[in-house]
Amino acid sequence: MNKLLRPKKIKIVEVGPRDGLQNEKKIIKSTEKAKLIKMLFNAGCEEVEAGSFVRADKIPQMADVNNLIGELKKLNIDLSKCTFLVPNLQGLERAYNLGITKIAVFTATSETFNKKNINASIDESLKRIEELAKVAVTYKIEMRGYISTVFGCPYEGIKEGQNYLKFLTDLARQLFAIKINEISFGDTIGVAHPDQVEEFSSHLLEKFGNKKIALHFHDTRGMAITNILTALNLGVEIFDSSLGGLGGCPYAKGATGNVATEDLLNLFNNLKVESGLDLKKYAEASKFILNELEKETTSKFLLNYFKA
Amino acid sequence: MNKLLRPKKIKIVEVGPRDGLQNEKKIIKSTEKAKLIKMLFNAGCEEVEAGSFVRADKIPQMADVNNLIGELKKLNIDLSKCTFLVPNLQGLERAYNLGITKIAVFTATSETFNKKNINASIDESLKRIEELAKVAVTYKIEMRGYISTVFGCPYEGIKEGQNYLKFLTDLARQLFAIKINEISFGDTIGVAHPDQVEEFSSHLLEKFGNKKIALHFHDTRGMAITNILTALNLGVEIFDSSLGGLGGCPYAKGATGNVATEDLLNLFNNLKVESGLDLKKYAEASKFILNELEKETTSKFLLNYFKA
Repeated sequence: MNKLLRPKKIKIVEVGPRDGLQNEKKIIKSTEKAKLIKMLFNAGCEEVEAGSFVRADKIPQMADVNNLIGELKKLNIDLSKCTFLVPNLQGLERAYNLGITKIAVFTATSETFNKKNINASIDESLKRIEELAKVAVTYKIEMRGYISTVFGCPYEGIKEGQNYLKFLTDLARQLFAIKINEISFGDTIGVAHPDQVEEFSSHLLEKFGNKKIALHFHDTRGMAITNILTALNLGVEIFDSSLGGLGGCPYAKGATGNVATEDLLNLFNNLKVESGLDLKKYAEASKFILNELEKETTSKFLLNYFKA
Repeated sequence: MNKLLRPKKIKIVEVGPRDGLQNEKKIIKSTEKAKLIKMLFNAGCEEVEAGSFVRADKIPQMADVNNLIGELKKLNIDLSKCTFLVPNLQGLERAYNLGITKIAVFTATSETFNKKNINASIDESLKRIEELAKVAVTYKIEMRGYISTVFGCPYEGIKEGQNYLKFLTDLARQLFAIKINEISFGDTIGVAHPDQVEEFSSHLLEKFGNKKIALHFHDTRGMAITNILTALNLGVEIFDSSLGGLGGCPYAKGATGNVATEDLLNLFNNLKVESGLDLKKYAEASKFILNELEKETTSKFLLNYFKA
């Protein structure tokens, strides 16, 4: 295996408090969420996706965002390291007024998924993001972009081939053009496999380099770590993950959601790739929130770590 | 990634009915075991580890081996494709008298593990195997060898470096010298990681080629498939696995045991590597035995497959 391209240091974007928690049924109090985020920064996190400004009735777990930000301030948490998902201008105004300096915006490679998820075509979602971006730039708010269903869609299946890669690259290019700083390519339903990851990653790295490309895997079929190693060996150095594997998959009841950050740490620690994260403190944060959620981790590694 | 060495076709040795079941508490009847083995061959298995001739009081799940072989014969199962674990000459005689033509023998790279497991030093275990092998050869019985704790031992930890690799190679060479046909190198406690697998596999492939080398991973920490892909890309083409991920880990209560055959099939099918196994029929066999055991699979892929 060609390990010459493998980075010595990677960045993990912790998405547990948003992408993870929003797929958990039990509502967690703002004080507990803030405590969790504090623990994550204490464990070495560089960047935490902390919440979102979506409609409270659509995603009740995220309804407390104003309150949460108040709690984060009370704990002296550096808000510049916290990202908040923002779907529209109204959300952007709220975020700005609360002192948020980093937001995430989102679209998908699937028309059907976008229609069902945000009631917009891909083009319409790009226009919305563009409007948002114009204002965000004047507010000096940094933007992260999510592209969902990159490796497969629950409605449109798996797309591959040169035309699809060209479409994907064009989509990413449009986002970079409007000052999106980093794009996270998501395997929303956990169907990616290593050869596909290799093909897609090589293509994206060739077009955009490895400083603005993140990969976001779900471990629905137990393939996330294999995919991450494949991408890592090609030079990808930004990965999204969720502490303890928080979050189910809304498209398959009972299925596993985001890959657990601890699984990444197990891999990176073994390979001596620096993540800056402290596994012990991380596992404590997971124990705390899993206890709040009254559930077990979906990570075999972490389960074993807890028992050892 | 250099995929030039990746085999187009691999062999899976199904160890569920022995290595898997022997770590399950609920005793399965011989008729049900035979039915399971029949389903596995119907799903395309080339080789099934079907049972063992160890002491009935030590491993109650394997106490019915005489009966099981009777049931296999009733179902017209080709016994030449069934391997039975044999610890000593007495077991060999029993196997021979029942018409068995393929046995597995075992040792480990750890003195402590061997002492606790078979009450013998590594050298003593080699002597026992040698005595066995002499007789087996006269009976025209084919032999498979297991080396346990290759990647880590519950008592002696993880060993690496050139001296260890030399020791491992010498051990394997001694087994090949006494007509052991194929050696399965085991990650008994599921601690192997990809760089270690790469180092060990490259070394073993260089010394022995890829026709007699099998790898046997446990998914205790969710790293088995990542390790298997790493080895596959280097040319390893024989892998042991257990349907549905049957079998716990006797050294860590509640931890995951053998990697699930279906996880391998998910990987190999995605990579278009031929295994000869039918996933649908395999999943049916797993459903049958998991139902008998009254437990859920440990495989995220299979869990998702069942729910889809």
